[in-house]
Amino acid sequence: MHRWGEWGDGSRDVPLPSRLPALLAGEVGVGVPPFDVPLDDVVAATRTSRLAGTSPPVAWALDPLDRLLHARGQSFPDLVAVRSGDVGPVPDAVARPGAAAEVRALLSWAAAHDAVVVPWGGGTSVVGGVDCPTGERPVVVADLVGLSGVRDVDRVSSLATVGAGATGPACEAGLREHGLVLGHRPQSFEHSTVGGWVATRSSGQQSLGFGRIEDLFAGGTVESPVGPLTLPPFPASAAGPDLRHAVLGSEGRLGVLVEAVLRVRPLPEVDDVVACYLPGWDEGVAAVRALAADPTGTAGLSMLRLSTPAETAVSFALAGAAGRALQQGLRLARLGGAPCLLLAGVTGDATTARRVRARVRDAVRRHAGRVVGTRLGRRWQRSRYDSPYWRSRLWELGYGVDTVETAAVWSAVPALVADLERSVAEAVAATGARAHVGTHLSHVYRTGSSVYTTAVFPLGASREATLERWRALKSASLAAIARSGGTVSHQHGVGRDHRAAAVEEKGPVGTAALGALVDAFDPDGVLATGNLLPGPPAT
Amino acid sequence: MHRWGEWGDGSRDVPLPSRLPALLAGEVGVGVPPFDVPLDDVVAATRTSRLAGTSPPVAWALDPLDRLLHARGQSFPDLVAVRSGDVGPVPDAVARPGAAAEVRALLSWAAAHDAVVVPWGGGTSVVGGVDCPTGERPVVVADLVGLSGVRDVDRVSSLATVGAGATGPACEAGLREHGLVLGHRPQSFEHSTVGGWVATRSSGQQSLGFGRIEDLFAGGTVESPVGPLTLPPFPASAAGPDLRHAVLGSEGRLGVLVEAVLRVRPLPEVDDVVACYLPGWDEGVAAVRALAADPTGTAGLSMLRLSTPAETAVSFALAGAAGRALQQGLRLARLGGAPCLLLAGVTGDATTARRVRARVRDAVRRHAGRVVGTRLGRRWQRSRYDSPYWRSRLWELGYGVDTVETAAVWSAVPALVADLERSVAEAVAATGARAHVGTHLSHVYRTGSSVYTTAVFPLGASREATLERWRALKSASLAAIARSGGTVSHQHGVGRDHRAAAVEEKGPVGTAALGALVDAFDPDGVLATGNLLPGPPAT
Repeated sequence: MHRWGEWGDGSRDVPLPSRLPALLAGEVGVGVPPFDVPLDDVVAATRTSRLAGTSPPVAWALDPLDRLLHARGQSFPDLVAVRSGDVGPVPDAVARPGAAAEVRALLSWAAAHDAVVVPWGGGTSVVGGVDCPTGERPVVVADLVGLSGVRDVDRVSSLATVGAGATGPACEAGLREHGLVLGHRPQSFEHSTVGGWVATRSSGQQSLGFGRIEDLFAGGTVESPVGPLTLPPFPASAAGPDLRHAVLGSEGRLGVLVEAVLRVRPLPEVDDVVACYLPGWDEGVAAVRALAADPTGTAGLSMLRLSTPAETAVSFALAGAAGRALQQGLRLARLGGAPCLLLAGVTGDATTARRVRARVRDAVRRHAGRVVGTRLGRRWQRSRYDSPYWRSRLWELGYGVDTVETAAVWSAVPALVADLERSVAEAVAATGARAHVGTHLSHVYRTGSSVYTTAVFPLGASREATLERWRALKSASLAAIARSGGTVSHQHGVGRDHRAAAVEEKGPVGTAALGALVDAFDPDGVLATGNLLPGPPAT
Repeated sequence: MHRWGEWGDGSRDVPLPSRLPALLAGEVGVGVPPFDVPLDDVVAATRTSRLAGTSPPVAWALDPLDRLLHARGQSFPDLVAVRSGDVGPVPDAVARPGAAAEVRALLSWAAAHDAVVVPWGGGTSVVGGVDCPTGERPVVVADLVGLSGVRDVDRVSSLATVGAGATGPACEAGLREHGLVLGHRPQSFEHSTVGGWVATRSSGQQSLGFGRIEDLFAGGTVESPVGPLTLPPFPASAAGPDLRHAVLGSEGRLGVLVEAVLRVRPLPEVDDVVACYLPGWDEGVAAVRALAADPTGTAGLSMLRLSTPAETAVSFALAGAAGRALQQGLRLARLGGAPCLLLAGVTGDATTARRVRARVRDAVRRHAGRVVGTRLGRRWQRSRYDSPYWRSRLWELGYGVDTVETAAVWSAVPALVADLERSVAEAVAATGARAHVGTHLSHVYRTGSSVYTTAVFPLGASREATLERWRALKSASLAAIARSGGTVSHQHGVGRDHRAAAVEEKGPVGTAALGALVDAFDPDGVLATGNLLPGPPAT
């Protein structure tokens, strides 16, 4: 279970890069550490569960600490809430069903007792997707930690059946015993779960090679308030609309995924990351686009991750003397102006890997860049899950961090990036502070790319001032995304924070259709968590 | 417009292979030509339109021939109906909207006048998907021939906006002007339309290289009875369930697709088909599976099409002396027992093509087979759209033809093929006739394959006896597919013929969800064509 106000469970210590505080002090000013309310005080102030004395349909915990740890996710407002001790609503019980039948029993009980059930995987939502709903109805979190493990492997069909509560490491460890890999590695990989990936349409860092969760989720079983929905793992079907794509992105509103059938692969021989530098953003985007839209395909190319000059400059600064040496080398190679770091994942057998490396080198050179090798890439691989851990450390130094992300077609990407970065910086400036903004393209497709922007800014003088700054940033970024042709989210989902924007994106007809789906699966609003659609009974 | 009782519009003459009648006479007995009712008699017997004298919301045709030509599709029962003159319900008008606004006007009018609208692309449904609904309500066919043409090309993003009424050749001709290709080539390619492909989740013969229509349909606009639904062409999105996948396979029940944004590619340098022979079915399946699940990907491999020994034997027999020579050669190469023809599509630049050819050769040799080259492949390419034309000629000789198709995971494929072939043969035998049955795998995936079985059988002594034989075949094949783990359809869709089986496959929760979607988009049942779901008001 994660630690209070932290990313992760404490099993891994991830310190802040040593040069980051000084860098931020220069960029956005010296932070003022906020006053955090101690956990003990929060526990002491937690109201008694409304389910105390109720006979539980499945075993559940009522103790305040367990309930508090399931009250919020990992969004910026969640961090503010938890750290400031103003947690908001806290669930009344935490159930840990150990089988599909227990999920079913919990949903039936909730329908009969007018309770709300919040499905919980790793609790890593950064968009308010696991926040406890407000309202009069009792709330039970269904923590799916008990539904884990690789249950069945069909090697001939490259399919594995996995419990929806399996975390990334648990899933991959189970598959590795069979010489297989799923390859889905979002930044939350260590803590997020198979069910959470499906529910939020997540995307792994190597989605170019392994596919998004849509490509990996072949089928499975969803326990819904009106009964189970079984999705057979057909390789393809023309038998009407594909209900997998209703479950994917349903964010717990249609039911609880209990088991997934996943498309797996043999473990690759090679899994490298090659670092390259392009002389500027335009050249970088052109190189990445050429590789992603290569008419001969992208087999063996598992990732293309291109940082803006600003984000690249941060990587130099954090590396100290090594970074300065690298910058000097790039200047000698006439790449010193505004270099952009490109990390290319090379995954497959040795022959394919050689071919892909050559292809990357050709594309980078054609766009006046240079390949610098795999040393930097290995460093990225070692630290690929680290940055979420930094947020709590930065908070303690008086800095807020949030990420905004989207995807758009290639023709819209350059203007979108410019608009998004400018809008975020201006929004924070309007609250009287400076933001450091950096962006990368990390998930590329033949027809477009994701855009991922990170903003660091000083916390406000009060909890409310901090939230106000974040709200300004968030609303400016969503407006920029919408006007520049991006989707509300490429990989984080909708939750509560993107709800209004998602309604705009889907339009009235699309929103009504989603509402009809929710009503069909959940007529009594048992899963009225507030995710995805506005106006559920409980929020 | 197609000719009465025929596949195609008469612009291309496709005679029956000269040796086919003798072959069939030997295999299933000599056919007895049926009595066909002349078109003039059918026209004369057609009831007057119930919309005669009604002021049309958009221009429409009321003449009996036009209405008759829009009364049925191209399923086997459709052919029986049309040829026997017992056409069943005939639409009351044929509208040809020239713009989205006219589609909208027609839908509004229909809602206000309690009429049913049947969206019509190429009218090539083989599962009853465009059959005129029965009932008291007037029926207007919306023939989308007027919504054609490539409207916009975004080269940077590899996207093209195409009118939903564009046929395959119209779509590709428009793209070719820009040096681009869609690459979606179902057997109906010459006559089916972009909108029809989306509505039925169609799959092109080269789906391995170009993707299914799900992969190609990036977005577009659907005019629904409750208003337009716009699907932006994002490369990917985590903003909730993907409504593209509700429109894909919706078979006209949610609205009328008026415009599609399609993912296109540069025209390939090479587009060859390499013919190979494997010594038997098991070796063939293993070779195809190894190629499809190659961990280094399938880039450049656009098709794998493997015929059973029986289907392969037919290809030898139809080729006469050349076929005998080929069989002799295969015997000398120790492939004479029960050889299986494998056609491998090789599509891309010259370098990729060379590599893919080598990979195919290696896989085929590892499974004791031989590559025979591209001459046979070119013959297949020339005749790739021919066989639907044969059906009317065979009908006139007293033979019925139907195809059944599905998809399943690899571990289920061998037993499914055996079960399906046996069930079809036994079902026809139970009606006192013999069927010739052949199968191929034509759309392969990492996790499974499609299965496509063709049955030829003598017509019955009467229209009803013929239909009875077909019903026996159809119901036996659907039962075999369900019990052996296949989907109701891989590429033909649901229409009316697969409706009951689709309800079983989706299950009660899934079926209710689809019903809720239909009600959300079409509360008045304007599009109550009878497709997809049972029990619409009009049927």
